[in-house]
Amino acid sequence: MHTKPILQLALDYIDLAPALAMAYLLRDEVEVIEIGTPLTKAEGMRAVSTVRHLCPGNLILADVKTPDVGGVEAKICFDAGADWMTVLGAAPLATVRLALEEAISRPGKEAIIELTGVRDILARAQEWRAMGMERMVYHRGWDEGNTARTWDPADWETIRVLIDMGFKISVAGGIDLETIPFFRGLDISVFNIGRAIREAEDPVDAARSFRALIDELWSEPIGAAAV
Amino acid sequence: MHTKPILQLALDYIDLAPALAMAYLLRDEVEVIEIGTPLTKAEGMRAVSTVRHLCPGNLILADVKTPDVGGVEAKICFDAGADWMTVLGAAPLATVRLALEEAISRPGKEAIIELTGVRDILARAQEWRAMGMERMVYHRGWDEGNTARTWDPADWETIRVLIDMGFKISVAGGIDLETIPFFRGLDISVFNIGRAIREAEDPVDAARSFRALIDELWSEPIGAAAV
Repeated sequence: MHTKPILQLALDYIDLAPALAMAYLLRDEVEVIEIGTPLTKAEGMRAVSTVRHLCPGNLILADVKTPDVGGVEAKICFDAGADWMTVLGAAPLATVRLALEEAISRPGKEAIIELTGVRDILARAQEWRAMGMERMVYHRGWDEGNTARTWDPADWETIRVLIDMGFKISVAGGIDLETIPFFRGLDISVFNIGRAIREAEDPVDAARSFRALIDELWSEPIGAAAV
Repeated sequence: MHTKPILQLALDYIDLAPALAMAYLLRDEVEVIEIGTPLTKAEGMRAVSTVRHLCPGNLILADVKTPDVGGVEAKICFDAGADWMTVLGAAPLATVRLALEEAISRPGKEAIIELTGVRDILARAQEWRAMGMERMVYHRGWDEGNTARTWDPADWETIRVLIDMGFKISVAGGIDLETIPFFRGLDISVFNIGRAIREAEDPVDAARSFRALIDELWSEPIGAAAV
């Protein structure tokens, strides 16, 4: 079945009130709502539980980027109402495995690899895939994005290989309407959008523009489009 | 001046109440109280601010292991009352630099490197030291510790080189009374103790046993003791 990429809104705030307001405003425009890493630390799991309460129809991602104690961090995220949580790719394999085991024990929950700090992505990806990890955030970091790195053809090729390995890929980091066509030809699972929606004059309208562009560019299955 | 290693209590909890009770019980026995990574995510920065309030005489470490958005995460930790916060060694250099800059702008605050996920420790350490980082947590991870790794001579030698580079070193991870002598001959700055104090029948007595042993083994400056 042909599945189009879905939209994720990143709540990159450190105060709960504006995060809740933005989540509520966008709840019918995006499939996934992400509690950003700094917000999970500023407000703790009540950021997850309040968004869960306010947005019962969305998938909630707790972007905790777990570096250790994987089973415990996955459990607190899921207990608070998160559907997905992230574990750091730079974490020990044992941490990834413990987060995954906690997710697998709870129907509908997913632990997701997040690539911050990983240098040998494809080698590590083989290990994670063999372990049973199915989803990965291909992430251009905030601090990196603010200084140097942009999306380039090497990213495109790496993402293609990861998808061929069987990973569902979320892409994140400085994505705006101009960036979306870069990902054409890739069976992207989730587009994670932050500032380009939150800081738009009309965030709802911005989200709809992303949806329209994605629906247009991913109107056919990738296999056919790539021909 | 000869300075003996100081003691840090790791609050590895996911609920605030038992963490507060343990912090209050041990406040006169340890110099540093650490808000563990899962607790920063479960309860957010109110875990830091309540321990700060309860224990005004201690140094408070927020072990957030910042992976990105370094300036923002450092700021929320310091605003909540933390004296020290940790930034992930696996994070981009830009993230480490932004956390450091935030710390330097505020007298008495420190950003500390945490080694989770770092494979080429000594090479990276040169970069961090050149940048101005002064303190590092040499950490045996929880999940790793539970499966395979123990302290070994390679750790001792790496710590020695890091101290020679000018780093103040905190050691953490499964440290009990039997482990302390392993670190003899090293000018350790902070011994971070968790379970061996928290799970002792009498945590105050356990902390005092650590203090007595450390005072005995580090009774002279390292230079003299090493002869």
